[in-house]
Amino acid sequence: MYYIGIDLGGTNIAVGLVDEEGHIIHKDSIPTGKHRPYQDIVKDMAMLVLKVIKDAGKDIKDVKSVGIGSPGTPDNEKGILVYANNLTNFVNVPLRAEMQKYIDLPIILDNDANCAALAESVAGAAKGASSSVTITLGTGVGSGVILNGKIYGGFNYSAPEMGHIVIELDGEPCTCGRKGCWEALASATGLIEQTKKAAQQNPDSLINKLVNNDLSKIDAKTAFDAAKQGDKTGQEVVDKYIYYLAEGIINVINIFAPEVLVIGGGVSKEGEYLLKPLRERVYKYVYFKEEPQTKITTAKMGNDAGIVGAAMLGR
Amino acid sequence: MYYIGIDLGGTNIAVGLVDEEGHIIHKDSIPTGKHRPYQDIVKDMAMLVLKVIKDAGKDIKDVKSVGIGSPGTPDNEKGILVYANNLTNFVNVPLRAEMQKYIDLPIILDNDANCAALAESVAGAAKGASSSVTITLGTGVGSGVILNGKIYGGFNYSAPEMGHIVIELDGEPCTCGRKGCWEALASATGLIEQTKKAAQQNPDSLINKLVNNDLSKIDAKTAFDAAKQGDKTGQEVVDKYIYYLAEGIINVINIFAPEVLVIGGGVSKEGEYLLKPLRERVYKYVYFKEEPQTKITTAKMGNDAGIVGAAMLGR
Repeated sequence: MYYIGIDLGGTNIAVGLVDEEGHIIHKDSIPTGKHRPYQDIVKDMAMLVLKVIKDAGKDIKDVKSVGIGSPGTPDNEKGILVYANNLTNFVNVPLRAEMQKYIDLPIILDNDANCAALAESVAGAAKGASSSVTITLGTGVGSGVILNGKIYGGFNYSAPEMGHIVIELDGEPCTCGRKGCWEALASATGLIEQTKKAAQQNPDSLINKLVNNDLSKIDAKTAFDAAKQGDKTGQEVVDKYIYYLAEGIINVINIFAPEVLVIGGGVSKEGEYLLKPLRERVYKYVYFKEEPQTKITTAKMGNDAGIVGAAMLGR
Repeated sequence: MYYIGIDLGGTNIAVGLVDEEGHIIHKDSIPTGKHRPYQDIVKDMAMLVLKVIKDAGKDIKDVKSVGIGSPGTPDNEKGILVYANNLTNFVNVPLRAEMQKYIDLPIILDNDANCAALAESVAGAAKGASSSVTITLGTGVGSGVILNGKIYGGFNYSAPEMGHIVIELDGEPCTCGRKGCWEALASATGLIEQTKKAAQQNPDSLINKLVNNDLSKIDAKTAFDAAKQGDKTGQEVVDKYIYYLAEGIINVINIFAPEVLVIGGGVSKEGEYLLKPLRERVYKYVYFKEEPQTKITTAKMGNDAGIVGAAMLGR
């Protein structure tokens, strides 16, 4: 059997036909046109699904289910996308019912962080592992936990929100209402803030030169780029960021002891430059210091994670 | 079928015959005599098992397994108690092999925090719940996670160490090597330290009177007792302690979303006096604010938790 996976984003809708092992047989995408009524968007999405199946030379009878991964708050029990902050008109959208007007297949919803974790578990960095946690460093800190091939969501499917572990009592206010959440320190957003602050305090640093003294151009790569060229301020920012990241990852390992811990998102593209000092700190301070230890690695699925993870929801 | 549960402690060894539902049919105990060679202790333990079965009017054929709950680091795979800090001569003790010299039954080992969590899940405060986390506030902060009736231990069985979630970056040094672990702030030990400090800074407080100005007599009840009698310093200690406890519990709920969160250990005997302000803070700040919410309650199994949990390891 095959599975359809849909990565429903604010810019594009990507659809793929995926096999049992998580390989994409064929994929295609269209612009979301997010300001349109949701009915129009869902219709386009359904038509793209039918096109992908046809272009792959398959029939709808070969497809077991359609999985949709989205940001925000999908409620799979009710089949509703409760809210998606990057989709203008998506508030309490009956996504399942609307899709089933065009496609008579089971429609499964989940959020993008869970889909990314599932994709890494089925076909990526955590393939073959009995348990994995995938941490995605982006605007926030996303997280997904896969135990024995299944997404762990807690009894009300609100877990895991690892980004909202307070690691600094009375720290900076977080959007969730608490103070000192890990997300504020370890997300790409946090890294950018830390880089900007260091650049302001050290106007002669290479960070400033790399962005032609326009601090609004600082991104999650800037401090790493400066550090690699020997800049002291850049290195200090990177060291401190890795410390923040490590403290949270040690927490996660002490809590879950996953076989594999996968780090995704833009920052993970730094590869070994990020992983080497991170692993050193984590293995030094993790509670359980014997072998076997949790393997720490970067995500492998890249942009396909959304499609593959959504497809594997039906497996 | 019945199950034997052994609570192997530094002072006493308690043995119980337990039914499928986690009810104790018959129990007995003997002093551990912890300074003796382990061979002698294990022999006494095995004899007590046989006595309990006989006194209950049952036969060894009615018993499916023998579970042993202990502090420290039991390794069930190898059948070895790697280390138990409150048992003098227990370093790499081949507990299973030694027991099987006397009793030809499966011998299962696990640590006391997991046994307490399993007991609450089978027959206590989390009975009937699909998932639960039990937090035990004692010398440290113990934790056990039960998912669908099974103990969750991670791939290397080192999880969960919730007490060793850093919640205060660069806080007080912890025995685990990190700084600012939850355990240092939320354990009974932490509460006692906080109470002593407040008593020193406020010599006129009721706390001092309650212990006749001998601060070494302060225990985990003292601040609560003072607060209940209207003492300002006592109330401040209690409020701050509940804040520390709540911050960690919100972390745990954000991570696991368990159906029930059980609080055990001496501090939990404060009951609603502890639970009411704790729940208020937790439900206000937990990430997922919709219904259904994790139920927060105190442990019900008391001193029997060790026996029942150890017995249910074989279920």
